[in-house]
Amino acid sequence: MSSRNNIAPQHIVLAFSGGLDTSVALVWLKERYRCRLTAFIADLGQGEELDNAARKAEKLGADEVRVVDLREEFARDYAFPMYRANALYEGQYLMGSSIGRPLIAAAQVRVAEEVGADAVAHGATGKGNDQIRFEMTFAALRPDLTVISPWREWDLASRSDLLAYAGRHGIELDLSSGERPYSIDSNLLHTSYEGEALEDPAQPAPEGLLFRVRDIADTPDEPETVEIHFQGGNPVGVNGTPLSASAVLEALDEIGRRHGIGRLDIVENRIFGMKTRNIYEAPSGSLLWHAHRAVESLVLDPEVAQLKEELMPKYTALVYRGLWFAPERLMLQTAIDFSQQDVTGDAILRVHRGTVQVIGRRSPHSRYDTAFATFEADDVFDQRDSSGWLRVNTVRFRAGRANGTAKP
Amino acid sequence: MSSRNNIAPQHIVLAFSGGLDTSVALVWLKERYRCRLTAFIADLGQGEELDNAARKAEKLGADEVRVVDLREEFARDYAFPMYRANALYEGQYLMGSSIGRPLIAAAQVRVAEEVGADAVAHGATGKGNDQIRFEMTFAALRPDLTVISPWREWDLASRSDLLAYAGRHGIELDLSSGERPYSIDSNLLHTSYEGEALEDPAQPAPEGLLFRVRDIADTPDEPETVEIHFQGGNPVGVNGTPLSASAVLEALDEIGRRHGIGRLDIVENRIFGMKTRNIYEAPSGSLLWHAHRAVESLVLDPEVAQLKEELMPKYTALVYRGLWFAPERLMLQTAIDFSQQDVTGDAILRVHRGTVQVIGRRSPHSRYDTAFATFEADDVFDQRDSSGWLRVNTVRFRAGRANGTAKP
Amino acid sequence: MSSRNNIAPQHIVLAFSGGLDTSVALVWLKERYRCRLTAFIADLGQGEELDNAARKAEKLGADEVRVVDLREEFARDYAFPMYRANALYEGQYLMGSSIGRPLIAAAQVRVAEEVGADAVAHGATGKGNDQIRFEMTFAALRPDLTVISPWREWDLASRSDLLAYAGRHGIELDLSSGERPYSIDSNLLHTSYEGEALEDPAQPAPEGLLFRVRDIADTPDEPETVEIHFQGGNPVGVNGTPLSASAVLEALDEIGRRHGIGRLDIVENRIFGMKTRNIYEAPSGSLLWHAHRAVESLVLDPEVAQLKEELMPKYTALVYRGLWFAPERLMLQTAIDFSQQDVTGDAILRVHRGTVQVIGRRSPHSRYDTAFATFEADDVFDQRDSSGWLRVNTVRFRAGRANGTAKP
Amino acid sequence: MSSRNNIAPQHIVLAFSGGLDTSVALVWLKERYRCRLTAFIADLGQGEELDNAARKAEKLGADEVRVVDLREEFARDYAFPMYRANALYEGQYLMGSSIGRPLIAAAQVRVAEEVGADAVAHGATGKGNDQIRFEMTFAALRPDLTVISPWREWDLASRSDLLAYAGRHGIELDLSSGERPYSIDSNLLHTSYEGEALEDPAQPAPEGLLFRVRDIADTPDEPETVEIHFQGGNPVGVNGTPLSASAVLEALDEIGRRHGIGRLDIVENRIFGMKTRNIYEAPSGSLLWHAHRAVESLVLDPEVAQLKEELMPKYTALVYRGLWFAPERLMLQTAIDFSQQDVTGDAILRVHRGTVQVIGRRSPHSRYDTAFATFEADDVFDQRDSSGWLRVNTVRFRAGRANGTAKP
Repeated sequence: MSSRNNIAPQHIVLAFSGGLDTSVALVWLKERYRCRLTAFIADLGQGEELDNAARKAEKLGADEVRVVDLREEFARDYAFPMYRANALYEGQYLMGSSIGRPLIAAAQVRVAEEVGADAVAHGATGKGNDQIRFEMTFAALRPDLTVISPWREWDLASRSDLLAYAGRHGIELDLSSGERPYSIDSNLLHTSYEGEALEDPAQPAPEGLLFRVRDIADTPDEPETVEIHFQGGNPVGVNGTPLSASAVLEALDEIGRRHGIGRLDIVENRIFGMKTRNIYEAPSGSLLWHAHRAVESLVLDPEVAQLKEELMPKYTALVYRGLWFAPERLMLQTAIDFSQQDVTGDAILRVHRGTVQVIGRRSPHSRYDTAFATFEADDVFDQRDSSGWLRVNTVRFRAGRANGTAKP
Repeated sequence: MSSRNNIAPQHIVLAFSGGLDTSVALVWLKERYRCRLTAFIADLGQGEELDNAARKAEKLGADEVRVVDLREEFARDYAFPMYRANALYEGQYLMGSSIGRPLIAAAQVRVAEEVGADAVAHGATGKGNDQIRFEMTFAALRPDLTVISPWREWDLASRSDLLAYAGRHGIELDLSSGERPYSIDSNLLHTSYEGEALEDPAQPAPEGLLFRVRDIADTPDEPETVEIHFQGGNPVGVNGTPLSASAVLEALDEIGRRHGIGRLDIVENRIFGMKTRNIYEAPSGSLLWHAHRAVESLVLDPEVAQLKEELMPKYTALVYRGLWFAPERLMLQTAIDFSQQDVTGDAILRVHRGTVQVIGRRSPHSRYDTAFATFEADDVFDQRDSSGWLRVNTVRFRAGRANGTAKP
Repeated sequence: MSSRNNIAPQHIVLAFSGGLDTSVALVWLKERYRCRLTAFIADLGQGEELDNAARKAEKLGADEVRVVDLREEFARDYAFPMYRANALYEGQYLMGSSIGRPLIAAAQVRVAEEVGADAVAHGATGKGNDQIRFEMTFAALRPDLTVISPWREWDLASRSDLLAYAGRHGIELDLSSGERPYSIDSNLLHTSYEGEALEDPAQPAPEGLLFRVRDIADTPDEPETVEIHFQGGNPVGVNGTPLSASAVLEALDEIGRRHGIGRLDIVENRIFGMKTRNIYEAPSGSLLWHAHRAVESLVLDPEVAQLKEELMPKYTALVYRGLWFAPERLMLQTAIDFSQQDVTGDAILRVHRGTVQVIGRRSPHSRYDTAFATFEADDVFDQRDSSGWLRVNTVRFRAGRANGTAKP
Repeated sequence: MSSRNNIAPQHIVLAFSGGLDTSVALVWLKERYRCRLTAFIADLGQGEELDNAARKAEKLGADEVRVVDLREEFARDYAFPMYRANALYEGQYLMGSSIGRPLIAAAQVRVAEEVGADAVAHGATGKGNDQIRFEMTFAALRPDLTVISPWREWDLASRSDLLAYAGRHGIELDLSSGERPYSIDSNLLHTSYEGEALEDPAQPAPEGLLFRVRDIADTPDEPETVEIHFQGGNPVGVNGTPLSASAVLEALDEIGRRHGIGRLDIVENRIFGMKTRNIYEAPSGSLLWHAHRAVESLVLDPEVAQLKEELMPKYTALVYRGLWFAPERLMLQTAIDFSQQDVTGDAILRVHRGTVQVIGRRSPHSRYDTAFATFEADDVFDQRDSSGWLRVNTVRFRAGRANGTAKP
């Protein structure tokens, strides 16, 4: 929550990315509050030059810069729990951005505690989702910290205002990104694109705008087979090699990029209810989602599987809406995690030309049972039992007809 | 429900496909019950020689043969209502078979009424889903009809028993299908494959087994753009041409086959709780699912959209489980249909190499509002309101802390 | 939404009750905006002297007063749809206040249209639920109207500030209510009590505070039997007499008051997430809830009944949260109403000493079927079928054990 | 699942109550299977002479009798987890019988393991719920045990057949119960009544049939105040005295009986879909349900509370349907239990003339915060924030109107 009245923070920790918004925010915060400022740079595997960002923060006047490598924590404690739920927002979006923000905010709170700061700030705009994901996390973890949201305080109303401000204050811009006609968020899971050039939802994205995954035309002629290994619902290796959580995502990312996997162009409902058009490129996420479902398909009890389907959309909305640290998300997570104990095994995927196809799966805890599945003769199932089952389950269609009361 | 004790049906209507199972069933029913038998052949666009099936039924001893073209009804009254719900069983399966059975059974009941039959029969096995979909429909519509399920009565226990029976009774087999090492179901929406050759879920499907959609390697080098037009939640045309319901599916099927769209290899939970491995090829369904979501994404109120997501898994399970005519499915359908009134507009898809990408969408009832969506300056949204929203929505994280009772 | 910046309304319609808050609001609005003001007085059967309120509004400076009798509309179009859902907020509260506000606000919008007003105002405070129920309705029906919420604009912060303001401006108070140490809302369904004297949730309500229903000690020694008649889910008569919707509520209210029915003392979660302690007295509502369930219990298909249970908490939260006119409430209502077509019949209740007991129920559409229910011999159910049902439904506990993979 | 074909059990454990059905079952099993039989008598606090039952079993030919006191386990591990969920089947029934059966069956399996038996048997009929609750438990815990359900095997079709069989075999009947025109189940939580004398749902239960709780006319003139203490969601004491789990139920039972608490007369949907009329008397359960909700009302986060409401009907159906040991019940239980960690505190109830009224509640973890709840001036909530909240939350009603596409 941004400040009311006269706050006088003593020490602000700003979540800093090095882009236009947080650069302007840094300068503006120093000018407005004239207090100590720590620039906090989170490494979620966005793959950009964090050293440059750090140098830039210093140059813009940060009193201190903290770069924190959050890649392993991101994969293990944020991405994987969400993938255990098979979460898809509005049936399609893998929520690569939604799941990054709570970690950045939580790590920012840790930095604030370490440096003894009394305020936290972010560069997210006042209409978007990210401000909410930041500030719900702040409120859940440390409601006593002052929260400063420059976009909701200053009188800069647009990108051009920001560019002008940057010019006036000698803020150097990375021209390429300064000219990008859209906003970008990247991490180990995905890259998202939103904004001006995409704002007409009837028009295709401009050619050449996207860069994470290859165009399908440029992907290899030959399919590639990938095997992903799971233990207790989490991926623990790829193609026979045990890997750390973040290394799994890196390995899948590389394969997925090469084969053009995981592009999605959608109009989604933002938290505030307005609609926005986004493009996502989620190579590792797409592979992981299919692989996890494949191992689950062998292992989950059928009714547990159905219950998971029914809980998923609610869980998903909570994550999307910034409620990662809210108790209702944790409550649903305990149920989901309960179902994952035996989700151990391997998924075999074929990737080719932008497509992901599961072609095989195995598990030491498989409930797949050829004796039950086969249409051939078997000893385990007496087909006559089906008659009893059907007679019982249609009682409700027959009850009341005898006494003439139920409807025909 | 199959018969108990001594039924003596006077006239049986058998759902007949011309395949091994229903051919044996026809002969067996005549032999066992020695009564009048009408062979009912449903045309759901499976694209096979129905005339052959009709001739075969006669030759095998049917007293009467009825071929009914159900294609338009199938598309309009079965497939489309289900697509209005965006139904995906266990997150992936488009339920092309699940949605065909209730129509076949309902049409079979109509035939029984027309010819004055007192019994209905089907050739589905006693372990599978289809017997349930048939018989739940019979029970919901006409619980007084006698239901005969040969698979649950005879002493033929396997495909080889059936082949032997066929041999003994001079039942001619289409060798190609008689030798198929899996079971197939086809209609306008999809083809499904299940059985012997696919029974090891760890092994890829044998090469060359599938035939509906092209292998990705054989698809055109160039992407194709398809525009699908919707009115009130239903597709009403393709690429500018108004089409009947079934013609929409035929047009999309052709495009989808050409580009290798809609192949799915999964292990799913059957109604009885055993797991089965299936392969589906659903070209038209895949295109339709993405297109419908695209138009919805512009039109639906955000909370209606979320509610639809939450209802979908339950609706889906009902359809999968053969409860199409159960009142709880109808109850959910009224809610879903309520949401579809304004789902009118166009989805623009790019299909290429097995992939479907929505690249544009438009609607006369769009709630997409650039003024709200933009991150640029606007007159409609005061970003300071977000601060109030956030302060209110975090009250719950702060309440109780003041009096020291709530948890830190 | 209250106004920002410089609004200059030309004509305000104020929802006026005659109590302290709306009296002060009326005077303040005239003083602050110096424009035409219509006082709108809604009759929801609160049983107070509306003529007095009308005279008071005139005396305080209203340019016009409109008293509208909404009792029948309230019962028929608001209370009954909600009772068709068996709605209970947090398992207990019958939502008598929640359901009144949207009607008052909707009728206020109609008045605004009739008199050509450009603004609407209410006297609800800025922390409570009622402001939201008013303003969500305004926004859903006429988002272009200016909304003025005096409590969120003036600098009066408490009841004592209001009393002082009233003193300064010569606003006459009904001393009894001016001194009431709690806030009251009444209508045909209930009376609610909230505020100062009840604010310690550990302490019983002060003796003598409540007045709608008799203390149990003062109720008749003898039980009374009441029969309520339903058609299509709605009550249409009592004890053999057909009654209008509002007359049903009046008749039940009288019976319920006499027998001390429907008192509830709870702590509930307000819309904004803070907890509040409320006492409700809902005599007609309690009788209706039990009676409706009783007729439903005979008529509803079992799976429809279960689906209704699962949808109810979501529906309830929408009503509580002021979303009566939101499309997601309407969407759920269509599903609920679908289930009510056959909910026709009679419920027989015994009321005694504060208790409601259903002792009988009948329906022309009853699915209760003695032949199925009895534990005696019958022709309709072969108990051996249960064995088949059980063997099928436990397949999932046996699958996978054979091949040693599933857990013991 | 009852046996098919030729079972030859070596040693059967029969759940024995001493009533007509299990007495006949015991004799019939010995006669039919001519093998060792252990009579297992479960003490769930039904308050009957278990010694008599034990003697009777011996006399009827049991080779061994095991009486097991399950009261504490019943309260702690079955009743309390269910009450943590606030479970009410079809909105009203506290499931006192549903929750007893899985424990009896689980304890029976333990006895079978102890005595080395290969079969388990029960006396529940083939149309009712209890057979399912028994056999689902057997299947979930030990699917390899043979299950024998005499009612589904013998040719005795009704109570009079049983009485005749009993006469032929010299089975002594407790005349009073032999003549009871209904079936009874009792335990620490409740007594249920079902059957012949209650089979017309339009007729009141015969006078004098019920016996557990006093008629309201016979209850004390004066109300009584009861205080129930909770820790982590479970009751741990009454009126200041710490008590074991079963002792809590006993104490509440006594109070509730005296004041006529917890009578319920309903028509419910049985598992198989037929409707049945039941009367329940649940004095301890009713008190506990209200008390638990009262402590929860202070402690639960508002969104957790709402999520619990939404999950409850599903959880409830699972318990009712005998799925206590199914993984989906355990999955939901983990979520429910997550919410109960801080549900510690006291509920103060007033019981009088059949009514239960919560009059106070307190908790060391209360989130009730007078500063937030009050309508008086406060420092914690700026009412102007509500305006921002409302403007944001009504964006969806305004979006699209500007560009003329959204509906008016």
